[in-house]
Amino acid sequence: MNPLRIGIVGYGNLGKGVELAIRSNPDMQLAFVATRRNPDSVKLQTEQIPVYTYDSLAEHQQDADVLIICGGSATDLPIQTPELAAMFNVVDSFDTHANIPKHFTAVDAIAKNTGHVALISVGWDPGMFSLARLYGNCILPDGKDYTFWGKGISQGHSDAIRRVKGVVDARQYTIPIDAAMEAVRSGSQPELTTRQKHLRECFVVAEPDADLARIEQEIRTMENYFADYDTIVHFISAEELKNNHSEIPHGGFVMRSGTTGADHEHKHLIEYSLKLDSNPEFTTSVLIAYARAAARLAKEGNTGCKTVFDIPPAYLSPLSGESLRATLL
Amino acid sequence: MNPLRIGIVGYGNLGKGVELAIRSNPDMQLAFVATRRNPDSVKLQTEQIPVYTYDSLAEHQQDADVLIICGGSATDLPIQTPELAAMFNVVDSFDTHANIPKHFTAVDAIAKNTGHVALISVGWDPGMFSLARLYGNCILPDGKDYTFWGKGISQGHSDAIRRVKGVVDARQYTIPIDAAMEAVRSGSQPELTTRQKHLRECFVVAEPDADLARIEQEIRTMENYFADYDTIVHFISAEELKNNHSEIPHGGFVMRSGTTGADHEHKHLIEYSLKLDSNPEFTTSVLIAYARAAARLAKEGNTGCKTVFDIPPAYLSPLSGESLRATLL
Repeated sequence: MNPLRIGIVGYGNLGKGVELAIRSNPDMQLAFVATRRNPDSVKLQTEQIPVYTYDSLAEHQQDADVLIICGGSATDLPIQTPELAAMFNVVDSFDTHANIPKHFTAVDAIAKNTGHVALISVGWDPGMFSLARLYGNCILPDGKDYTFWGKGISQGHSDAIRRVKGVVDARQYTIPIDAAMEAVRSGSQPELTTRQKHLRECFVVAEPDADLARIEQEIRTMENYFADYDTIVHFISAEELKNNHSEIPHGGFVMRSGTTGADHEHKHLIEYSLKLDSNPEFTTSVLIAYARAAARLAKEGNTGCKTVFDIPPAYLSPLSGESLRATLL
Repeated sequence: MNPLRIGIVGYGNLGKGVELAIRSNPDMQLAFVATRRNPDSVKLQTEQIPVYTYDSLAEHQQDADVLIICGGSATDLPIQTPELAAMFNVVDSFDTHANIPKHFTAVDAIAKNTGHVALISVGWDPGMFSLARLYGNCILPDGKDYTFWGKGISQGHSDAIRRVKGVVDARQYTIPIDAAMEAVRSGSQPELTTRQKHLRECFVVAEPDADLARIEQEIRTMENYFADYDTIVHFISAEELKNNHSEIPHGGFVMRSGTTGADHEHKHLIEYSLKLDSNPEFTTSVLIAYARAAARLAKEGNTGCKTVFDIPPAYLSPLSGESLRATLL
């Protein structure tokens, strides 16, 4: 068997994670990395792998079986995924939930016209959490969904704090509230407010002469980010931030609470949870598994845009159906 | 849309559960129940549904889109699933893990020859737990699997106790051991013995003059069932057994503990768990969702034997791809 040749587009946290994750999958190899920066400025963790410019990718269509596009959802992926799906089979981790239908439509048209497979919104949310919600809904139609995130770093909330005047740096942890999770696990199907489900803990490095009370107040009352939550603000030194908060952990819980029986007398709880030391490395581990599926779908002659909902689970595995049935079923 | 017509074969706990589960799925209707008993002796929970003899099923091939075969794995399904896959699209819950490959081969040949879809080993283990193992293995190839069962009633172990001389009735609970689960959740990837993972608690009704010490000893030393476990035996009255142990709860936990990073420095835990008030009703809720998938696969012209590994998750849902992407992704 020829190894599956993976191209990486974008060499930030996600791109570096894909590069490492390939090492754990002996049926794959890294073909190249593409970047919008000067390729000479990009130092890979793997030797003898070419770095191409993003704009030269059209010349390398024969060099990769699947591209993993490691850009951001706000501005990169809405442009790059349609653009690259015209030339390659691609996988992305587009995670702006509200815009997924629009992204799907744009990518689907191009992938179908050019005969490629494009797998979008792969990762853990959207991704594995979406699958947990789908399976839960289909199995227990009489029920209710709950998703809790954390404990983990929210990049968006950390960035929002950094924009407050007088803030040098910050990390924000989203923390699910135990009492809310226990209420769900009891089967009572509670209605939970935003404030009841999560709290937000912030570690902030301020400028030496900053007004800490004003910064704290601005954070706690920030609309769309903190105003609806109980928020804890700690001021710490730059050194403490570096020593204790430089990792990017995350995780969360998807629960489906439902009932069955003639009088709905039997309660059931399905719970899927993740506890991740490195959010980007886990996300890329999911991307890599779905790259395998994208290649297989393309080989079978499929085209167009797909999501995790469309992929037979066996397609994620390097093992044959026979061996999966014998060992994991 | 015409509703999906479901036929039930066998009217025990599972058959009754399918009948109830259909009520929670408005796109489905119960077509008939088939039994090897005298149909006049079978009293359904639903009015105006015909009860046919198992032997007359060939005459009713046009009356159901999918049959759900609700027999036991020891003697019923190895015969019934191949037999009925020659006439219908079928779903079964064959759960003797070691014999799945043999069952698959037998069913696949017949389903392919006769142009039907046969989905085997659907339920929660095998079934949803198998999916959790597969996804976990594919995402975290550098890792280790753990499955814990319970707390719940093990039918096989309860039956084994009932065969001990002097025992009138019994229920056996399989209980996962917290310390073992916490060790796994810590990311230490421990090696766990059978005894470290589960304990077995037995509620036994003995004959009035039975030698309780001898019964307890026979249970605790029973090879393949109890000898490798710490086992607790309680003697109770028939009334207590009826009042406190007549439900059939079960559940369990599938964990994948893995690492990523250049030096495997990042630990990740994926955990999937079920807490079920009624084992048969949850199993049938899974069967019903997969019956929808079997019908869709058949409509698309697929044939042969499949397992949960082969089914795109979206096929379990009555919703369109568009609406799934907008609401659950």
